[in-house]
Amino acid sequence: MDKIYFGVDIGGTTVKVGCFDENGNLHSKYEIVTRRDGDGSYILSDIFSSIEEHIYSIDENVESVKGIGIGVPGPVLDERIVNGCVNLGWGTIDVEKEAKKYTNAKVKIGNDANMAALGEMFKGGAQGYNNVVMVTLGTGVGGGIILGGKLINGANGAGGEIGHIPVVHNATEQCGCGKYGCLEQVASATGIVKYAKKLIENTDMQSTLRSEINITAKDVFEAAKIGDEMSVDVIEQVGFYLGTALANIACVIDPEIFVIGGGVSDAGEILLDVIRKTYKEKAFKASRETKIVKATLGNDAGIYGAVKMVLEE
Amino acid sequence: MDKIYFGVDIGGTTVKVGCFDENGNLHSKYEIVTRRDGDGSYILSDIFSSIEEHIYSIDENVESVKGIGIGVPGPVLDERIVNGCVNLGWGTIDVEKEAKKYTNAKVKIGNDANMAALGEMFKGGAQGYNNVVMVTLGTGVGGGIILGGKLINGANGAGGEIGHIPVVHNATEQCGCGKYGCLEQVASATGIVKYAKKLIENTDMQSTLRSEINITAKDVFEAAKIGDEMSVDVIEQVGFYLGTALANIACVIDPEIFVIGGGVSDAGEILLDVIRKTYKEKAFKASRETKIVKATLGNDAGIYGAVKMVLEE
Repeated sequence: MDKIYFGVDIGGTTVKVGCFDENGNLHSKYEIVTRRDGDGSYILSDIFSSIEEHIYSIDENVESVKGIGIGVPGPVLDERIVNGCVNLGWGTIDVEKEAKKYTNAKVKIGNDANMAALGEMFKGGAQGYNNVVMVTLGTGVGGGIILGGKLINGANGAGGEIGHIPVVHNATEQCGCGKYGCLEQVASATGIVKYAKKLIENTDMQSTLRSEINITAKDVFEAAKIGDEMSVDVIEQVGFYLGTALANIACVIDPEIFVIGGGVSDAGEILLDVIRKTYKEKAFKASRETKIVKATLGNDAGIYGAVKMVLEE
Repeated sequence: MDKIYFGVDIGGTTVKVGCFDENGNLHSKYEIVTRRDGDGSYILSDIFSSIEEHIYSIDENVESVKGIGIGVPGPVLDERIVNGCVNLGWGTIDVEKEAKKYTNAKVKIGNDANMAALGEMFKGGAQGYNNVVMVTLGTGVGGGIILGGKLINGANGAGGEIGHIPVVHNATEQCGCGKYGCLEQVASATGIVKYAKKLIENTDMQSTLRSEINITAKDVFEAAKIGDEMSVDVIEQVGFYLGTALANIACVIDPEIFVIGGGVSDAGEILLDVIRKTYKEKAFKASRETKIVKATLGNDAGIYGAVKMVLEE
């Protein structure tokens, strides 16, 4: 390959690295461990030396590496500076400047949820669209918003913080962000498990979940798929709040398509159907037919988005 | 003046017309009646002939008119086509094409709420900002969203339809749009009067409003300013739902500033204070300090925005 590009997705436990050609086709990928000791000070050097090794292993030249895009789990300013990242132990770091110690390639960074959105637009469920809202349902709920092909970062880096849209009225439990009634509290894997446990404790509903020792969100989806009443109830609550949040978003930016990704989206059609039904009820009429689809890239969305970011210029 | 530009704001009863120099300074303005008979077929010709007359009256040449921007109370496609406008009796009209019959100047059209947002960014409360959300509180609730200096129209022309964000849970009354619990139902002048009447009927609260025959939103503001308990209660509900809606919006696009305009904003600081308080409670922490200000151009926002639209190129 004449020109080689890398898309990197830094997570709390592993770093995913994809090696791409100049058209964004994936050539190869691998993972390394996220070394969080020493305030995460080894993470960047680990990434760059792994890239060098990988280049040698595929018989290419390091000078062919033209761009490296990196997604990080925290707020990012100007495609260069991470503005604090608790999960990695990072404070404010100028990644572009750091990177210059290791590589001549162009380096850009972005927020991981934004990268996932960009990835799904580039090669996933939102391919062919320019105005995309991606919702990532995992341990938390993240979001990425693309208008006219460009990510919306927001004046304070909080563009696409969909997980913190206040959707539950009169909520009494506090969200990790300090507020009450955030979407993340009900639509994340954590929220799903919490709600299932609440139903077990406070109702007489029959459910296969009662026999599980440690309930996971996955248990709830699988039980719901075979008609377990309590699990269906949980999915309906999640879908209701998600559909409501998407209707809110449509009144603001009226996107062409919504893409639902992250582990919770593995619940599949049973969840998507509730989201779509609620969305249609609550969306403004002009936006009522907006597509709501499942993400297709899974855990690779981040590396596709990160490489898209450096392929763009 | 070498180059003359017009900003036009078509309303249901009057058309406001502003005559500007090439820097967007207002030279003169006037109003004509909106002739709605004949399915509104005279409105455009009335506007263009009034502009010609005005040009003669100020001793200028019609050839000096370089651009005419027009705001209409309906959805607009491509800065050219009105996609139906019930208030004017219009169906789908290609205004740019119509305009060619009357003028050689460049003609562009935009939605009136969007024009107000553009006007407030150009010369009003949001001057100096590029990422602006404007909320217009009148008979209905309209909105305009500007990101990176550009209006967000949305995939279906529903960008900035802030009035239809669903904010009231378990609402039983239907909004004009067919949904339940829209912001417009509680935060418009109509919604304010309705809520005041409900309190009069269903509570024993003392209030000067009880002596009014036809309560208006203005009566409620004036009574609230002198401490009338029931009126303060109404303002607090309006401010609560508005603050909640702004917090929702901030989680999506995280603007630099919110501008509150329209007749209801004349309630002034008493309303803004409740909006700000609720917003701070419900907004994501990164966006908590976002400015919320009153619009400053009043009824002229539309003509300033409309002229800005044609000055832009």
